[in-house]
Amino acid sequence: MTTPTASLIIAASEVDSNLYYACRFLAPDPFVYLEVNGRTLLLMSDLEVDRARAQARVDEVLSLSQWEAKARQRYPSPRLTDTVSLLLEDYGVKAVEVPADFPLEPADRLRERGVTVTARPHPFFPARLIKSKEEVAAIEETQRHTEVAFEAAIQVLRESVIRGDRVMWKGRSLTSEELRKIVNVSLMEHDCIAQHTIIACGEQGVDPHNEGSGPIRPHQAIIFDIFPRSSQTRYFADMSRTVVKGKASDDLRRIYDAVLAAQRRGIELIRAGASGAAVHAEVVASLEARGFTTGVVDGRNQGFFHGTGHGVGLDIHEPPRVSRVDHELRAGHVVTVEPGLYYPGRGAVRIEDMVLVEEGGCRNLTRTPKLELLEL
Amino acid sequence: MTTPTASLIIAASEVDSNLYYACRFLAPDPFVYLEVNGRTLLLMSDLEVDRARAQARVDEVLSLSQWEAKARQRYPSPRLTDTVSLLLEDYGVKAVEVPADFPLEPADRLRERGVTVTARPHPFFPARLIKSKEEVAAIEETQRHTEVAFEAAIQVLRESVIRGDRVMWKGRSLTSEELRKIVNVSLMEHDCIAQHTIIACGEQGVDPHNEGSGPIRPHQAIIFDIFPRSSQTRYFADMSRTVVKGKASDDLRRIYDAVLAAQRRGIELIRAGASGAAVHAEVVASLEARGFTTGVVDGRNQGFFHGTGHGVGLDIHEPPRVSRVDHELRAGHVVTVEPGLYYPGRGAVRIEDMVLVEEGGCRNLTRTPKLELLEL
Repeated sequence: MTTPTASLIIAASEVDSNLYYACRFLAPDPFVYLEVNGRTLLLMSDLEVDRARAQARVDEVLSLSQWEAKARQRYPSPRLTDTVSLLLEDYGVKAVEVPADFPLEPADRLRERGVTVTARPHPFFPARLIKSKEEVAAIEETQRHTEVAFEAAIQVLRESVIRGDRVMWKGRSLTSEELRKIVNVSLMEHDCIAQHTIIACGEQGVDPHNEGSGPIRPHQAIIFDIFPRSSQTRYFADMSRTVVKGKASDDLRRIYDAVLAAQRRGIELIRAGASGAAVHAEVVASLEARGFTTGVVDGRNQGFFHGTGHGVGLDIHEPPRVSRVDHELRAGHVVTVEPGLYYPGRGAVRIEDMVLVEEGGCRNLTRTPKLELLEL
Repeated sequence: MTTPTASLIIAASEVDSNLYYACRFLAPDPFVYLEVNGRTLLLMSDLEVDRARAQARVDEVLSLSQWEAKARQRYPSPRLTDTVSLLLEDYGVKAVEVPADFPLEPADRLRERGVTVTARPHPFFPARLIKSKEEVAAIEETQRHTEVAFEAAIQVLRESVIRGDRVMWKGRSLTSEELRKIVNVSLMEHDCIAQHTIIACGEQGVDPHNEGSGPIRPHQAIIFDIFPRSSQTRYFADMSRTVVKGKASDDLRRIYDAVLAAQRRGIELIRAGASGAAVHAEVVASLEARGFTTGVVDGRNQGFFHGTGHGVGLDIHEPPRVSRVDHELRAGHVVTVEPGLYYPGRGAVRIEDMVLVEEGGCRNLTRTPKLELLEL
């Protein structure tokens, strides 16, 4: 008789995408997922057990309180891990594989109960990286809403007028906050949750994760980076564009053109079998060929100091990476291609599309144009 | 010479509230927080190091890439945990305490490098439960926006008319989805993110975590449970109300009155030094005194089968619990008081306020009235 192999997750599916992927059931508090010899089951509290039985895509939903009652026959006040160890015993399971981010405390407690607990290397479910047709459609749907939201902000920039160093809209000085609200509310109207939408103008954009605040300034780069999640499907999209209200300097235009050329070069190279690291190296080389170098100047990172892209799906950042780390791209991966250049005192540009990796090439899932620096 | 004691977190502060609490710096990807003898430091990637130096409330921000360069002198391709172990060595640290949900894989790798890794029992930062004036103000601000959003939905119910078994608004059959959009968009306009807002009518409300879908029906209970987070402060609020469009049955009214009486009883008992379990038991007793019992009937949970309340702060569910688990309430805790009754075929009611625990009593942070069942 062979010992069954088992996979175990204890998490809240609201924040743990592996768990949501495994059972397609959303709950805000931690619960137990177990897969033994291909059979999947959940252990759910009274609060969630009926909903889980109706909604979760697993073979069986067990009642935690019933299993706790069994556990009380052995332990006076059983912890969740005591109950889980009893369940494992019932299935003849002595060893479980858990995600790399499985919480330490329950892992140690299970070990104390004699269970062998091993972290399976990331990604826990390799199949998660290969998007099905339905998953690609979900990502594209979120992306469509992203484009509508971006267009709403662009419309405001079109309607606004330049007065000195301000951009005026409806008689007020237009701010990053106001544009962000327009983008995020548009997304919410389509049941998409946008958090930390970046609308960063001028020097603010030089820090890639600065969300932007205060007045929008004319004649400077405005970086939009919008990455909402659909509340209905849970799938993310991710897009960046750089525009100018007014007239860009020649220097800013050169930066823009270099980023756009590098981004196109990256997209051109993406296909099944390509190395993410090789694509990233070519993007870096394309920027360098136009004289845009990367390094620390006066104690600050300058140039292109993040990866070219990352996987997008149930998480906004997931494997594979298109960066210095070598990940092989495979058909069905959805990745961003988002080079940027960041120079204090000069400005910053980032351009980002999402593409679906295919045999012999890739399909761009982004429709918003990027042909030239948009001057509004 | 004594060995320094150290606390270590490796997480993304975007999803890990302990880490955000510790450094007040928000980032989407995992980074390293270390506290040694009261001195706090972060280890940040090139992408985040400059922003962290400007924003994070810690004593020092170190460059991960610089420490990786050091680690490469010892390990050919150092993992993050190799670099962290070097940093710990530099500080003479041999043992670290980590949160209970610290990820297993890096914990095991640090152990392989000879570091003693112990999960400190939850809550990792006990001070997080005792809200400062600023934190209470942040929670109240989110709650004010919640009340505005709820009032917007109530206004729609007021304006709508009953036609047979439908509730019509602007010529269309009003749905849970439409009301949810009104609530969530109102919140987004105030920079608050609402996810999984519950607007559940009739039988849907009988499952406490059913978000609700489809047509709103007249003369039935509509449960609103709204729990947004402020994007600015990161603090949550949480409120539930039950209303009826049309006329409630006498039975539904009795259920409502029982829940309201039980909720008032709970609030009455909450004070510094009170036992959460004792408060919960009294709430249960209050419901039972009116004949509302709890148990499994026909394989489904009925009655009141969740806790009376939970802490609210940087997480929507945090300690202390007001439930069967015995947590002592202390001045500065913010907890919900949210009894509910759920009877298939009869209906469901939940009423929830947030209160600040004080010496000798509590202060209700919720302003939306609940005097009687609101018939609109």
